[in-house]
Amino acid sequence: MDKYLERLKNGTLKLYALEKEVPALEAIRIRRAFIEEEAGVQLPKLGSFTMDPSNAVKRNIENMVGAVQVPVGVAGPLKVKGEYADGTFYVPLATTEGALVASVNRGCGAITRAGGADVRILRNGMTRAPVFSTRDVLHAREVKDFVDGNREKLVAAAAETTSHGELTGAMTFVTGTTVHVRLEFDTKDAMGMNMVTIASERIANLIEEETGARLVALSGNLCTDKKPAAVNGILGRGKTVVAGVALSTDLVSEVFKTGAADLAEVN
Amino acid sequence: MDKYLERLKNGTLKLYALEKEVPALEAIRIRRAFIEEEAGVQLPKLGSFTMDPSNAVKRNIENMVGAVQVPVGVAGPLKVKGEYADGTFYVPLATTEGALVASVNRGCGAITRAGGADVRILRNGMTRAPVFSTRDVLHAREVKDFVDGNREKLVAAAAETTSHGELTGAMTFVTGTTVHVRLEFDTKDAMGMNMVTIASERIANLIEEETGARLVALSGNLCTDKKPAAVNGILGRGKTVVAGVALSTDLVSEVFKTGAADLAEVN
Amino acid sequence: MDKYLERLKNGTLKLYALEKEVPALEAIRIRRAFIEEEAGVQLPKLGSFTMDPSNAVKRNIENMVGAVQVPVGVAGPLKVKGEYADGTFYVPLATTEGALVASVNRGCGAITRAGGADVRILRNGMTRAPVFSTRDVLHAREVKDFVDGNREKLVAAAAETTSHGELTGAMTFVTGTTVHVRLEFDTKDAMGMNMVTIASERIANLIEEETGARLVALSGNLCTDKKPAAVNGILGRGKTVVAGVALSTDLVSEVFKTGAADLAEVN
Amino acid sequence: MDKYLERLKNGTLKLYALEKEVPALEAIRIRRAFIEEEAGVQLPKLGSFTMDPSNAVKRNIENMVGAVQVPVGVAGPLKVKGEYADGTFYVPLATTEGALVASVNRGCGAITRAGGADVRILRNGMTRAPVFSTRDVLHAREVKDFVDGNREKLVAAAAETTSHGELTGAMTFVTGTTVHVRLEFDTKDAMGMNMVTIASERIANLIEEETGARLVALSGNLCTDKKPAAVNGILGRGKTVVAGVALSTDLVSEVFKTGAADLAEVN
Repeated sequence: MDKYLERLKNGTLKLYALEKEVPALEAIRIRRAFIEEEAGVQLPKLGSFTMDPSNAVKRNIENMVGAVQVPVGVAGPLKVKGEYADGTFYVPLATTEGALVASVNRGCGAITRAGGADVRILRNGMTRAPVFSTRDVLHAREVKDFVDGNREKLVAAAAETTSHGELTGAMTFVTGTTVHVRLEFDTKDAMGMNMVTIASERIANLIEEETGARLVALSGNLCTDKKPAAVNGILGRGKTVVAGVALSTDLVSEVFKTGAADLAEVN
Repeated sequence: MDKYLERLKNGTLKLYALEKEVPALEAIRIRRAFIEEEAGVQLPKLGSFTMDPSNAVKRNIENMVGAVQVPVGVAGPLKVKGEYADGTFYVPLATTEGALVASVNRGCGAITRAGGADVRILRNGMTRAPVFSTRDVLHAREVKDFVDGNREKLVAAAAETTSHGELTGAMTFVTGTTVHVRLEFDTKDAMGMNMVTIASERIANLIEEETGARLVALSGNLCTDKKPAAVNGILGRGKTVVAGVALSTDLVSEVFKTGAADLAEVN
Repeated sequence: MDKYLERLKNGTLKLYALEKEVPALEAIRIRRAFIEEEAGVQLPKLGSFTMDPSNAVKRNIENMVGAVQVPVGVAGPLKVKGEYADGTFYVPLATTEGALVASVNRGCGAITRAGGADVRILRNGMTRAPVFSTRDVLHAREVKDFVDGNREKLVAAAAETTSHGELTGAMTFVTGTTVHVRLEFDTKDAMGMNMVTIASERIANLIEEETGARLVALSGNLCTDKKPAAVNGILGRGKTVVAGVALSTDLVSEVFKTGAADLAEVN
Repeated sequence: MDKYLERLKNGTLKLYALEKEVPALEAIRIRRAFIEEEAGVQLPKLGSFTMDPSNAVKRNIENMVGAVQVPVGVAGPLKVKGEYADGTFYVPLATTEGALVASVNRGCGAITRAGGADVRILRNGMTRAPVFSTRDVLHAREVKDFVDGNREKLVAAAAETTSHGELTGAMTFVTGTTVHVRLEFDTKDAMGMNMVTIASERIANLIEEETGARLVALSGNLCTDKKPAAVNGILGRGKTVVAGVALSTDLVSEVFKTGAADLAEVN
């Protein structure tokens, strides 16, 4: 332990390189000791965990020093009448916001007592939107025409990289000499962001080769990942699902201790 | 154990009531066993945790069945030159998104090598926006006039409920006969949402008494909590902070393996 | 004249009914005289016009009392290199905002001296979006499926009402039990709003008959007419046109008396 | 006439310079003749107008070639119960959209029969928002502090340029090293955009002198003029007015031939 701390301090060992020399658990212990010393704090809770870090340090986290534990509660039973999920379920919720599970639980109760919620998937498309730079307006139009007129080439390019995802849409947005191409994929049961990114890169290369446009960024901010965006609200992203249940006035007053009209007004 | 499972199944014991009969850890164990049986699954990892659940089940979670563990990595050192935080820091990040910590770490390195980031707090205001219903347009205007002309009464009402938070702003938005009052508080070091909610309720009651308007909801969706909203982008919510650092062209190429002009174009 | 004024005052003649009794010009004169008396003003300029009102009172205006005259200036010559418009044009502008024509004129000069603007039409679609009410989520999904799977029936329904416009797209947006169907038409050279509205009504009736959904409004605010809307920015409405010209740095300084870098910063 | 046309064609006379040589009406006539020849069209209606162009060519239009005439209809009587406007009014509408005046007229009838509309002005503020560039985040904060802490200096600077308008607000928005200052003025009965622009320039110069910030543009797009913008929706711009009327169910069915519930659903 001490010799590693010494090397971390004199800079001959990098924090991220610890896993190359010692097993994951030991690397985490040394790194935490170093941070505790540097920051002048003790982090015993961070160091007390039961998860096995050996996979995590390879795929999910860098410079790991421990783990936080988030309590999980269940809401339910919740009756769902969907095409895929059809039955009664318990819903796990990881949170530290008091009353959240209780509140969701009350909603589950109302839905289940009303006979369950109808659920339908309306659209299923994960997106990535590479952005291209073109010489002029005419060139931008050529890129748009290529994308609009060669769907099967784009589908084939995507298929070279994945057998699970499938290109289902390609929409172009031209602003001046900049062309965004919003690619949409059916990713089956997977969230599929990585699959979609790799397939999009292949398609982007094809567009570059065939049109001479220059790829500026693979993710041109029209995707749009992890941000709320008007484009997603309108075109959808990921799975677009609609769910509905009819609650009787009696049920509303009994479960929520309030009137249906009051609920509507607040809404 | 078995007798509790029996009572859960025949409905004579409610899931949420377990903590009233047995200690927290035991309640969690029974509840998890019940869910495992109902759902036909085994949840050993959810049940293996080291946190002490006795406080959590009182304040942070209901129907607790276990805990998830999220790995924590550190990025840093990060040099910050702020009015409050001034020095070199390590930044903990709990995530399972591979490459995120490494990427933040690279950014920390660039900022620190450039001499650190200047940081200033520009605005500090936590908000809650009760919404009122009025008789007609004239009444709506009266409510607005009361709020605009009696700031000291509102400040005093808030002060009755808290010695930490302080009302610093009250802005009215009238649409037809509906009046939103966006209250803004300085909550010092606290996030302060609860403090603000209690103080806002007292103010809302004062407005009801003095104007005859009817409180429709304490949180009228102009606050706006946990949702991105144009109103927050413009007026700010919580602490509005600006941070800046000047990166030399050399530093950009060295750390990010790309040119500054390319970075600007993508942006 | 006097007897009509008398009848307007005692309510035995309605303002809008004047055209039934006297020619258009006379009706306008009497109506203006009535308004002048009621409002206690003189409106000689409103009454002095050279346009022929006989068609206008039938198709463009009700209760006509006169006309306003807006001065028209020209900017140009403007060189355009488009697929349809290809040549040098003068652009008429009706305005009373001083410096507007001069400013547009300066822009035309810069574009023309730079060799003209490339112009391309990227999309041509006029829209109307009827909104339907359905029984529940399953019914909403059925309506969506009908629209998605019966494009040729929708095209045929539209074709019954017009030989000029053509249905080119139908996009459904489901929110709960409400279904918006955004219909898009190629209206050739016409703006085509009326043609589109009539065709949309026929399509809406077809959807009602085939699915049992109830038409709530023919124009469901997703069209979106005469209002700026995110949906139009993303999906386009009417003709989506892109135009571009490359201005040399010298030309920018000469025409606009400013540097290209300054222009970029302000932008 | 012919000699001027000759000079326009050979470039020795500029289109905009005609008013320097001949009276306004004559300049308009010559210019229109030139355009008719260049474009190969006849524009007799554009040339037939009764307005006096001598003031217009100085203040409202450049390169004038004629005028368009837009028919004006009246809707009313409309009963208004406001603080300023209190009585019965006729509303003139210049339009060529058939049925618009009739439709507004029907609304006026319903409002008047219901006893008139209550109207109140809630806010009166015309805005201009100069944008400044600063050295770094600390400098940006200084500019913000100067604006926040020296309201009376800003008011005084504005007062040097106008005796009608009055600075009533100054709000800063910092993004990185860019500082927008949204200035708000009470412009009394005037729309006041010019007055506000001149006063804002004086204030902007004061900010430059006192803080060393550099004015990038007097109108930094947060004003926001002639565009719909979130910032105006939230903070208001110009006069913010609320109007209301209570329509009985009977009145709605009688005037609009529809039920109140249907109206609410469409809305």
